[in-house]
Amino acid sequence: MLRTAIVGASGYTGGELARLLCNHPAATLTVATSRQYDGQLLSKVYPHLRDRVDIICRNLGSAEIIDQADLIFCAVPHKTAMNVVPAFLDAGKKVVDLSADFRLKDVAVYEQWYQPHSAANLIADAVYGLPEIYREEIRSARLVANPGCYPTSITLGLAPLMKADIVDPDTIIIDSKSGTSGAGRAAQVGTLFCEVTDGFRPYKVGGVHRHIPEIEQNLSALAGSPVKVSFTPHLLPVSRGILSTIYVNLSREATLNEISGLYQKMYGKEPFVRLLDSGSLPATQQVRGSNYCDISLNLDERTGRLIIVSAIDNIVKGASGQAVQNMNLMCGFDEDAGLQQAPLFP
Amino acid sequence: MLRTAIVGASGYTGGELARLLCNHPAATLTVATSRQYDGQLLSKVYPHLRDRVDIICRNLGSAEIIDQADLIFCAVPHKTAMNVVPAFLDAGKKVVDLSADFRLKDVAVYEQWYQPHSAANLIADAVYGLPEIYREEIRSARLVANPGCYPTSITLGLAPLMKADIVDPDTIIIDSKSGTSGAGRAAQVGTLFCEVTDGFRPYKVGGVHRHIPEIEQNLSALAGSPVKVSFTPHLLPVSRGILSTIYVNLSREATLNEISGLYQKMYGKEPFVRLLDSGSLPATQQVRGSNYCDISLNLDERTGRLIIVSAIDNIVKGASGQAVQNMNLMCGFDEDAGLQQAPLFP
Amino acid sequence: MLRTAIVGASGYTGGELARLLCNHPAATLTVATSRQYDGQLLSKVYPHLRDRVDIICRNLGSAEIIDQADLIFCAVPHKTAMNVVPAFLDAGKKVVDLSADFRLKDVAVYEQWYQPHSAANLIADAVYGLPEIYREEIRSARLVANPGCYPTSITLGLAPLMKADIVDPDTIIIDSKSGTSGAGRAAQVGTLFCEVTDGFRPYKVGGVHRHIPEIEQNLSALAGSPVKVSFTPHLLPVSRGILSTIYVNLSREATLNEISGLYQKMYGKEPFVRLLDSGSLPATQQVRGSNYCDISLNLDERTGRLIIVSAIDNIVKGASGQAVQNMNLMCGFDEDAGLQQAPLFP
Amino acid sequence: MLRTAIVGASGYTGGELARLLCNHPAATLTVATSRQYDGQLLSKVYPHLRDRVDIICRNLGSAEIIDQADLIFCAVPHKTAMNVVPAFLDAGKKVVDLSADFRLKDVAVYEQWYQPHSAANLIADAVYGLPEIYREEIRSARLVANPGCYPTSITLGLAPLMKADIVDPDTIIIDSKSGTSGAGRAAQVGTLFCEVTDGFRPYKVGGVHRHIPEIEQNLSALAGSPVKVSFTPHLLPVSRGILSTIYVNLSREATLNEISGLYQKMYGKEPFVRLLDSGSLPATQQVRGSNYCDISLNLDERTGRLIIVSAIDNIVKGASGQAVQNMNLMCGFDEDAGLQQAPLFP
Repeated sequence: MLRTAIVGASGYTGGELARLLCNHPAATLTVATSRQYDGQLLSKVYPHLRDRVDIICRNLGSAEIIDQADLIFCAVPHKTAMNVVPAFLDAGKKVVDLSADFRLKDVAVYEQWYQPHSAANLIADAVYGLPEIYREEIRSARLVANPGCYPTSITLGLAPLMKADIVDPDTIIIDSKSGTSGAGRAAQVGTLFCEVTDGFRPYKVGGVHRHIPEIEQNLSALAGSPVKVSFTPHLLPVSRGILSTIYVNLSREATLNEISGLYQKMYGKEPFVRLLDSGSLPATQQVRGSNYCDISLNLDERTGRLIIVSAIDNIVKGASGQAVQNMNLMCGFDEDAGLQQAPLFP
Repeated sequence: MLRTAIVGASGYTGGELARLLCNHPAATLTVATSRQYDGQLLSKVYPHLRDRVDIICRNLGSAEIIDQADLIFCAVPHKTAMNVVPAFLDAGKKVVDLSADFRLKDVAVYEQWYQPHSAANLIADAVYGLPEIYREEIRSARLVANPGCYPTSITLGLAPLMKADIVDPDTIIIDSKSGTSGAGRAAQVGTLFCEVTDGFRPYKVGGVHRHIPEIEQNLSALAGSPVKVSFTPHLLPVSRGILSTIYVNLSREATLNEISGLYQKMYGKEPFVRLLDSGSLPATQQVRGSNYCDISLNLDERTGRLIIVSAIDNIVKGASGQAVQNMNLMCGFDEDAGLQQAPLFP
Repeated sequence: MLRTAIVGASGYTGGELARLLCNHPAATLTVATSRQYDGQLLSKVYPHLRDRVDIICRNLGSAEIIDQADLIFCAVPHKTAMNVVPAFLDAGKKVVDLSADFRLKDVAVYEQWYQPHSAANLIADAVYGLPEIYREEIRSARLVANPGCYPTSITLGLAPLMKADIVDPDTIIIDSKSGTSGAGRAAQVGTLFCEVTDGFRPYKVGGVHRHIPEIEQNLSALAGSPVKVSFTPHLLPVSRGILSTIYVNLSREATLNEISGLYQKMYGKEPFVRLLDSGSLPATQQVRGSNYCDISLNLDERTGRLIIVSAIDNIVKGASGQAVQNMNLMCGFDEDAGLQQAPLFP
Repeated sequence: MLRTAIVGASGYTGGELARLLCNHPAATLTVATSRQYDGQLLSKVYPHLRDRVDIICRNLGSAEIIDQADLIFCAVPHKTAMNVVPAFLDAGKKVVDLSADFRLKDVAVYEQWYQPHSAANLIADAVYGLPEIYREEIRSARLVANPGCYPTSITLGLAPLMKADIVDPDTIIIDSKSGTSGAGRAAQVGTLFCEVTDGFRPYKVGGVHRHIPEIEQNLSALAGSPVKVSFTPHLLPVSRGILSTIYVNLSREATLNEISGLYQKMYGKEPFVRLLDSGSLPATQQVRGSNYCDISLNLDERTGRLIIVSAIDNIVKGASGQAVQNMNLMCGFDEDAGLQQAPLFP
């Protein structure tokens, strides 16, 4: 059994990693770190895991983590991640980093949107952990930068179009809606139940959300030329789920059939992408708890615009599930090991 | 006291009209019709109205309604409305019709999106009941076509821009999200609690929602030339509220300050439009239960796009509240009579 | 106009007081204190109040508050309240205290459940602000101890029975369920959206909730002899509402008809108690946003037990609405002034 | 692989059976019947099952079902079940019936609460499918009557006490709260999203819910003498979960420690019962999607009452999960096969 560590086990992505790993056939959880809950059972922090996860949270240093684990999931915030990852790699460990620290290839862009980078030398080594695009690179990576939740839903939604060079790059508008778990488990007024329930609101409107450079990096790489997008995130009164509604003008005429063919070609054999039939539309409740990304294509014949809708569970395919998928690739396991659970509905 | 009737009192908009009228200083509810609940107290159909609304639902014909009411709210579905409105007008009654039947000026467009029109001769008489634009016409109208919920949120969001001819008319993309009350109180699987809660989905994607011709009629009239929009509705797991996120390219350069000035000029004295300061964003929970429309303007400097966000309560400003506002104008009452209730939060 | 102050305006009960006062015909809000939001508009703290409440939060001392207000609502936590109330009373102001500090008549009981009392001399002066029981005393009170949310729903549910001496006092079991706003607006993990939504849990099980001595004091006073209850609170995934399901054995045989008569006699003319017909049951959504308490009586013929169900909006009748009702009585206003709003449904 | 059929696949319990079976190591779904969706993919009826469940709903007669399946899950309503089960048994099939038709041992009681029974001769053969109590009988049963959702949560909560003869049988009061999926997927106004969300209500108050005879049968069998209970169900605005708060007076003095010992003895090795430490309390969100029953014991020292709280997912342990557990026992599979999924939180 592969010994795995979760650094930062008390956040929602940490808890979800523990949930997914407890049924994994080839990996086991040997380390769960937490400063705040040092000495407490993780199943006390997350009582749903009682009887399934029998590990005590510890406030451990790098040396101890390295000693007890072969692969390390970093589930700490950006900036914290860049401070701990180098030691893990130096010790020959494999790392899946769920933070933003190693996602952006251009350190200047990173430093513009975040803060100075203390481990910029590792950026070149990091592989962007979107298996549908970088599967082969991930297999041999020692450091995988696990994608952001919004970028996952958006990049999967647009990849076949960008690759086919069929989108007018100046027309991409992305309207995304996320469940509240995306805001994390930190106590704050804005995500209290009474503030969020029975309501809906946008946030960071006007091109200021930090996932924008990641989205643009992904789409530009696929297109082979620079792409700029308008991106507006919204907060849904649901716990899990991201749904992105993506509007594009095509750069040349194409039938819906031709476009579907592009998606079919790219995703037809993907274990975690479900292309919906015409007439079906994604819904976050249909992917809840699973690693699926559901995608539908819709042509607005009145305006000529293509509307792509994609849905994921933000803490599975948008975070911890994708991290396990990356681990599976890095370690030669079946890609869907530990991820076979069907979505939970209702 | 003005005697009012609600034709179709058992739907959500009917119940809401009763709620608003029970505190109205100059109007009283004298007729509530319902085929299904004939003979039952409306407060049995809507127990929240116990002790406040003391009226029995009746399955009445036009003659009886005409006999007992001075102003009639039609809260029945489209097609049903066009069959009952003519008799009311013939009898000299004032009518606020909450259906789509008299909203579209071009009967051919109506018949393309709905079905044959049996009272097309009345369309010319109908005034579109958006007081912020047609206040003076409403004052003297005998038939007011109360706007749709989505068109209200969108038209108010865009009107100052369209009037100023500052929008590239080919670039308007509207991503709207509605609470489930918009789907009405009819029993159907798709709006059961378990189907909707903790989830989110789009519907009628690709330019096929019936509110599109109404939106385009409004925007075209304001712009003075034909406008086509992309419009995507989504279903929110909230009971009340519509939030529209609207993306436009400007047709000429303009500062956010200049644009704010256009909105300030048009809405500065409006009783039910609240322009948010830069840095504030609308949220459906901040207009819940009230007749307000909250609007914010956001410039995405990276892409040059303007993003307008507007929020209303779909069954108040988007239906019954606006209907009362129209009644107030038609009858010379204070425009905010019965509508002074502050939003309910949390 | 009566000048009123809210001490502690940033909590949910403070915000709700501001909402209710903004439509009050005889009272106006002249002071809103807040340490945290000193200098900010209250409508910035509570954006739903934009355009309705135009007051700036201030971190004021007693002298300034006394100077600017005639009646003071204390919406600060217990312990804080007892430190500020004496000065207000010394200055001849009327006070409605929403905390627990002046509710318990026996200071020893208070100190057992809370902490030492620094203003115990004022307890005797305080009138318990449940108008349905202490209306006349409230009219002439200078200090009203506004009841707790659970005690309001429970005392109103049981009062006619206790007064009639028809309940076996050893058999009272109260199972209450509260909306999350009862936990306040402080940032804490336990009331985050993701922790509460789509879930349900009890808390403080086993006779340890601080509202127990208040409930028992009320019931004992009505019965004229000591009463002990089992009380279990639960947390509902709703923002507003308390529903209490109360089980009692009768101490003598009685028909449901006879019992209904007791309730009818006590509450028949009450403006804010609605006795439901047999066959109807309370629901929190039917009192949402209103000052109503809905009560139904149910006899389980198989076990001989009586089951009383009562529902209120915890921040209206359970806090701020009842505080306004008390103010109305203390100041000779119409008892329902500012409280006429019908419940909001859906 | 065991071939299984779901008769009545379009309800929520049918969909959940399909979800659980799709990961079962020893059973496969070969038949899914539905009159309404004849000819449609089950994954069209339940889109969350896309790519996981590849079966077409058919409106089949008994002969065809018998031909294609070895074990049959009846997920049709009571009365319908009694009409189809006999043929399955005659053909030598094993049956797990999720309806109420074979749960009550006394046909007179059944007919009092339901309607005439057309297959009363089979009642004696049916084993009540609560593995924690009837495991051995289930192993050799050909017809298992799968317990009701409320009775499961209540019987597991009380069984050790009843067996130990330590409860005063006249004092049992059960206050239960259920998620809305318990009301099924039929279209009805009362379970529309807008009617249920942000609200809470009791229903069937006063000893009239049909689960009462089942609860009393279970408790009486455990106690060895007749038991009557007060039972009040409530409707929660959550999709899944039942939480029961159970109040009892003990018939003799006992410490919490002694009582815990009874539960530990009965459930210590149970795979799906989790006894919570003192200080922890069940929550429906901690069992969501899993087959667990979480139980906590609480002594109210002020009143001497014991308060037991139990929580299950009503469509897993309260229906389909327990049905799979029963199938596992009947077929000699590992008892937790297909049921190892950890709860989903948040």
